[in-house]
This record gives sequence, structure tokens and C-alpha cells, in this order.
Amino acid sequence: MEIKQLREEVLTANLELVTRNLIISTWGNVSGYDPESKLVAIKASGVEYKNMKAEHMVVVDLEGDVVEGKYHPSTDTITHLMLYRAYGAEGICGVVHTHSQYATIWAQSGMDIPCYGTTHADYYHGDIPTTRLMTDAEINGEYEKNTGDIILETMRGRNCHSTSAVLVHSHGPFAWGKTPAEAVLHAQVLEYVAKMAWSNYVMSGGTCRLIQQALADKHYNRKFGPDSYYGQ
Amino acid sequence: MEIKQLREEVLTANLELVTRNLIISTWGNVSGYDPESKLVAIKASGVEYKNMKAEHMVVVDLEGDVVEGKYHPSTDTITHLMLYRAYGAEGICGVVHTHSQYATIWAQSGMDIPCYGTTHADYYHGDIPTTRLMTDAEINGEYEKNTGDIILETMRGRNCHSTSAVLVHSHGPFAWGKTPAEAVLHAQVLEYVAKMAWSNYVMSGGTCRLIQQALADKHYNRKFGPDSYYGQ
Amino acid sequence: MEIKQLREEVLTANLELVTRNLIISTWGNVSGYDPESKLVAIKASGVEYKNMKAEHMVVVDLEGDVVEGKYHPSTDTITHLMLYRAYGAEGICGVVHTHSQYATIWAQSGMDIPCYGTTHADYYHGDIPTTRLMTDAEINGEYEKNTGDIILETMRGRNCHSTSAVLVHSHGPFAWGKTPAEAVLHAQVLEYVAKMAWSNYVMSGGTCRLIQQALADKHYNRKFGPDSYYGQ
Amino acid sequence: MEIKQLREEVLTANLELVTRNLIISTWGNVSGYDPESKLVAIKASGVEYKNMKAEHMVVVDLEGDVVEGKYHPSTDTITHLMLYRAYGAEGICGVVHTHSQYATIWAQSGMDIPCYGTTHADYYHGDIPTTRLMTDAEINGEYEKNTGDIILETMRGRNCHSTSAVLVHSHGPFAWGKTPAEAVLHAQVLEYVAKMAWSNYVMSGGTCRLIQQALADKHYNRKFGPDSYYGQ
Repeated sequence: MEIKQLREEVLTANLELVTRNLIISTWGNVSGYDPESKLVAIKASGVEYKNMKAEHMVVVDLEGDVVEGKYHPSTDTITHLMLYRAYGAEGICGVVHTHSQYATIWAQSGMDIPCYGTTHADYYHGDIPTTRLMTDAEINGEYEKNTGDIILETMRGRNCHSTSAVLVHSHGPFAWGKTPAEAVLHAQVLEYVAKMAWSNYVMSGGTCRLIQQALADKHYNRKFGPDSYYGQ
Repeated sequence: MEIKQLREEVLTANLELVTRNLIISTWGNVSGYDPESKLVAIKASGVEYKNMKAEHMVVVDLEGDVVEGKYHPSTDTITHLMLYRAYGAEGICGVVHTHSQYATIWAQSGMDIPCYGTTHADYYHGDIPTTRLMTDAEINGEYEKNTGDIILETMRGRNCHSTSAVLVHSHGPFAWGKTPAEAVLHAQVLEYVAKMAWSNYVMSGGTCRLIQQALADKHYNRKFGPDSYYGQ
Repeated sequence: MEIKQLREEVLTANLELVTRNLIISTWGNVSGYDPESKLVAIKASGVEYKNMKAEHMVVVDLEGDVVEGKYHPSTDTITHLMLYRAYGAEGICGVVHTHSQYATIWAQSGMDIPCYGTTHADYYHGDIPTTRLMTDAEINGEYEKNTGDIILETMRGRNCHSTSAVLVHSHGPFAWGKTPAEAVLHAQVLEYVAKMAWSNYVMSGGTCRLIQQALADKHYNRKFGPDSYYGQ
Repeated sequence: MEIKQLREEVLTANLELVTRNLIISTWGNVSGYDPESKLVAIKASGVEYKNMKAEHMVVVDLEGDVVEGKYHPSTDTITHLMLYRAYGAEGICGVVHTHSQYATIWAQSGMDIPCYGTTHADYYHGDIPTTRLMTDAEINGEYEKNTGDIILETMRGRNCHSTSAVLVHSHGPFAWGKTPAEAVLHAQVLEYVAKMAWSNYVMSGGTCRLIQQALADKHYNRKFGPDSYYGQ
């Protein structure tokens, strides 16, 4: 892929965060990864979405060195890069970070988002996990790198396609997908199911029944399993 | 009705799902039934609402064979067809499926939506039922057909006009009406009353008083009873 | 006032119900009263807001006889007329009925909306009352007239300016003001404070402290008291 | 700064209150302070946001005397002035007052907004405090001046940059910043975190764990501390 095209895709995906009500102000960021050139385009740090242009998408290599662009890349760049280093070979080429409200509420609660229904199961196979608390040493050390580490620690034993988001404790969600656009969709679906799960949790005092395992399997697999039959 | 017109009506109704905030992404589907030709137009599977055109409305017969259209019809087509087979003769010519948030929350709770007020009673005579859990055999068998069966099982003893929606347990609502447009309206009203009922349930810890039967009868009948006097 | 102007004002006020998210579909209605001619313009029954025109505003006298217009007036016309008969002489020239969500939730709860803060006190002096349940005889008799009676019964001992809305039990709000536009504003403020009061009620398990009486008096009086000093 | 420019900035900031869904009707107000001329521009009292123009921004000196403009300044002008007198020398040049819903819900609850996560910590270092109840004498005396006093009393021992908002008990928020635009951003972030905190409070019955102190420090300081590294 040409770098120009990567920047455009990442710009479009960043602007979608606003359209889909997932961020306000300068919050959040989307990046895109080109597995051929091993380059990443990511939103510049602290830039307003209003009037955002392709030039605000900074191109870095997997070590985080700026290859193209005159702005500082997002503070969260290292966290994104760690996800591409871990999952790029499995086809993950888009990462998004937001503080979308209900996903963040679950992150603040310190709980995983339980799978209460098929809307969740259509995209996420199993609960959506929240990381453990960081130690003070992790917070005061290389914080953004340690955020990446704790996401990967939480993902141990999970598949990056069927668990395509993690909530960072007390912070908010990181989500990913095969393209920047799919990462944004996953962040949007996460917010949607997080709101419903919050409502079921409150309504039931935390006793809402989880989805039956067979039903979760059925919905996930008809979209993404080897015998999937959803879509065109 | 001409097939062209049926497709246009169904397209319009599908697009209304977005306008009325009942779906995101490719979710949900509306179909329309022409009782003369016994044909059904339904949204193609997994198609984005943005740029959706009449050509994405696939025409099938009541056995589900594609009569016109180059796309795969919605995965839920068989569920729609079962509703037309059961209720087409009673004038049901539109069916809609969404994952609208509060209707889905009630579906995930496994509870029927109680009738707490006249907004609900103006459209639905009695509670809005949720299906029983499916067995693993039903889930792993002909799932979408079994979804249709369990909706019809839940409707036993009910009238398809005064109960024009069922919540599929752990999944979401199916609603219907005399036209695709009316089915969408019923799905929108369902979401509206589901949100209010959730709020009353939470506020009261589940002890909110049901509407008086006389008041429910009055409101339903002044709109739809033999001596109705609402409207033009 | 000319009838033409009254109809235009009432049309504008009806359309504002949509703009301010107080209604969907054909729900709700606004009327306006001209004290000189003693005529009332009110929305026709069951008409969609989309494409609504001045011709859908029906002109009736205080007995409810149609003076001008080819449509049936709103089913709730008699309830509006009873409010003008009671309060027209005190300057009430606009009435609105909605099923706005949080006002309706309080109506369904059967509770008055308590005054928890100055946003409420800026417009409503004291709680916003909910009517008692109607008897079956009242429901099965002249229902819409009895709805007017029960609103006036609830208003006994209250001032129509400082209590400019009543919630009809299990149904929804009626609000009024010196003009149709002010009635709509009162319905919008009612919805706003109803949402906040619901949130405080849920957050506190119903134990939220009421506003101090001195503070409620201060806020109401600086806007509407004899020594008011708010506004131009 | 020229007075004309100050008025334009304050007008723009007032209009942003509508765009960001922080107010309805004539509610709320933003002011701006020019430290050179020691003049303040503030919204006129009781003016609708629709069709608001620069001429509705009234210019007053720090004693509240009108210097320019034909309208009465906001009833809350004295409260704004007291904040500039206290914090103008520290660079506070914008103040905003709203009744935004979730901030007001916390004000009505009488509780401080606890810091549950990094979204809050990115802007506010520590909880967001609510004032004590006013005495009847304070309410019935110079109410708006006493509102200013109680805000400053609540701020004792706090820094006007790291605590850039106070909730007035039973009333609503005042927020401030280095410019009118920043004050509006702080009011918007306040509403955003207030909604999430309300949701966490309700979900946990008030037992939600506060953010770790080290994490709160980290997030605040990487944006605003001496070694900040966020942004361009």
C-alpha cells in the first residue's frame, strides 16, 4: 500500500470516531498498519478533529521513529505499535483507542463485560476483558509501553480476532481489526454492547444470566467460523 | 403490487431504521410481503445502509427461493417467511428485525416488557413477550427456522395485531405490521416503551404497578377497537 | 388575533415538539387560545408531523364545535378546552400534551416529581404533581373529559402559573403557558428536570434531599416574582 | 485585546454551549476577561441562543458597571467577576455556568464527583467539589455574590488550574479556563465525566473504587505537569 493511501484511510477512520459519537475534543486515536512496508500511520497528539487533515497522520516505523510528518505522533503510539508487533502477522492492521462512555464505565468498574446476548456474540467470542490494575512502578515507569504489556498479558490464551478489544483498567478501551475501518467498527460495537450490558447489570443487580454457550458459539461462527454463512 | 414498488417500499423502510436510530452498521432487516404474488422482498445479508439501493432488496417466494436479485437474502429470511406464512392471511405484510438497545436489553433479561402506561397500550395490548430459551439442539439445528418456530410458539393464544412484536431471548426483537412502514413504526414504538419500562423497573426495583386493565383496554380500543375514534 | 395567525403559531409550536425531541410519530399535540374570539386552534388527530401544515390545525370554540378546518381535531381536544375554560382568564393561551420519556416515566411511577434543584425551581414552584388513578367508571365514561377533570382536581390549591404542568397517572404530561411557544418550553423543561430527578432518585434510592424552601422561593421569584430581576 | 475581539470570542463560546448539548433555552452563560483592560464580556440576561449576536455580549468592569452594551448583563455576572478577581492574575480568562444534566445531578446530590478514571484525571486533579448548602440568610441576602463566596470557600486549598470547576449545591456547575473556549471545554469534559461517574456510582451502589493516586498524578501531569509530553 502506498503511504499516501494509508494516511487517507487512517484519517477517514479517525473522523469516523466523531461521526459515531465515540470521542469528543482531541481524544482517542486510530492507527493503520501496512504489513509490506511495516509502517504505521497514526493521529498526531492533541489535535482537534475539526479541520483534521491527512498531514496530521504521522508515519512511524515499528520502533516508533517518525518516518514522515511534522507533528508529534499520539502519546499512545507505543501501545499501538506493540499490538501490531504482536498481531500484525495475524492480519491486524488497524488499532483504535477511545474513551467512549460505556466502555469506559466498565473499565472504571474493573470488571470484564459479560456476554449477555447475541449482539455481543456476533462480534466478540466471550467476555471483553479488563486489565488488572497497574502497579505504581508500572505507572511511574514507561507507562504507555506498560499499558501495551498489560493488554498483551490480558490477551494471553485469547485469540486476537475473537477478542478484538481490551479495556485498560480505570482508563478505557483499545480495539483492533483487519483495517482501520474495522477497528473503528469494533470500537463502536463495543460501546453499543457495553451500554446494553450496563443496563442489564443495573436492572438485575449484577445477576443477569449469561448467554448460553451454544448460542454464543452459533452467532460468532455463522459470521466468522469456517462454515460462516452471513453476508455476501 | 408490482415487484418494483415492493422493493422500493422495503428499501425505504430499511433506511428508516437508521433515521430512527434503531440500528447501526449492517444490522437489522425489513421485509415486505405482497399477498397477491406471494412474494417477499427483503434486505440482502450483511449490506451497509450507506449507499443501500433497491437492488439490495432480494425477492424470494414463501419457500425462500430467490426470484429476483443478485445478492444473498438476509440470514433471517426464513424467520420472516414463517411470520408471513402464519400471519399473511391476517394482513401482516411487513416484518422487521433489529437489535435496538432497550428492546434488546429486555430480551437479554429474559423478561416480558410489562405494560406500565398508555404509550405502550396505544400500540400493544398486553405485555410484549420474550421467548423461552432455545435448547442446544434448537440452536445447533436449523437455527433461523427454529427462531421462527419459537416466536410462533410464544404467540400462541395471542393476536398478531394486538401483539405485533416478540423479543427473542438473549437476542432481540422481531416486529411486524400491515406494511413495511408500519412494522418499522412498531419497532420504534417498542424501543420507546422498552426504554421507559426499563427506567420504571430500575426506579422501582421491579415493583412498578402495571397499568389498570380498563385503561389499557380504553387506549388500545380507541385506536384499534371496533368503535375507534382516533385519527382521521 | 387573527385566526390565521393563531393557526400559524400553533403549527410552529407543534413542529417544535419534534425539534426538541419531545415526541415521535403522530403523538402529542399543542393548542393555542385566542381570548378575544374565544377560539382554539389544535392539531388534527393522528396526523404525522412530517409535512404538517397550517391546514392541519383545526379551529374549535370552547364547546369543541369545529369552526374552521376539514380534519377531526385531536382526541384530546376536550382536555385542552377544559384547561382554557379554567385558566384562560388567568392568561393561559397555550396547552401541550406529550409522551416525553422521563415525564412519562414519572407518570407511570405514580409519583410527583420532587424539586431537587434550581433548574426545576426556575420554572416550577414546588413539585410537579401526578393525578390519582382514575376509577374504571371514569375510564369507561367520558374519558377525555374526565382526564380534564382529574387534572383540575389535582390543581386545586395550586396556581396555574407556578404549577404549569400535571402528569396524568400511567399516561403522560399536560403542560401550559401564556402562549403555545411557552407551553412547549414548559414541556421541554419538564422533560429536562424529570430526567435529572429520575437520575437523582435512582442514585439515592429515593432518599435525595429536596431543595431548601428558601432556595426554591429565591429562584422562582427572581424570574417571576413581583421583584423579579432576571431577563431584559 | 480589543473589546470587539473579546465580545466575538465570548459569543462563539456561548454558541458552543448549544452545539455541545450543555444548555437549552436561555440557560447558562459564558464570559471572557481581558487582563489588560480589566474588562469582562458576558452574555446578556435571559437571551435566546437562536439569533444571538455579539451585541448581546455586555461589557462590564470588575465592579460590574456596564461599560458597553445596551442589554442587562447575566444575573450571574457578579459570580463571574468574583472568579476573575480571585483567579484573573493566575491566568483565568474564561468562566462558564451551565445546568448540564449530569453535572447538575451531582450538584443536586450534594456529593463531590469522585475521580473514577483517567478521563477525569486528564483534566481535573482530584474530585470535583460541591459547595456546602447555603444558609437562608445567604440565599435571601446578596444571593449571586454569596454564590461567588461559597465557590471560593470551596476552592480554599485547591489550585484554580487543577480544579477548574465547582458544583454549586442544588444548582449546577461553574467552570473556568485560560480562555472562554477552554472554559467551555472544561464544562463539556465535566459533563462527560459526571455521566460516567453517575453510571459507575449506580452500578456499584456507591462502592466503585477510586482511581489509584499514582495513575491520577500520571495522567494529569503528562498533560499539565512541568514535564508534560502530551500534544504538540
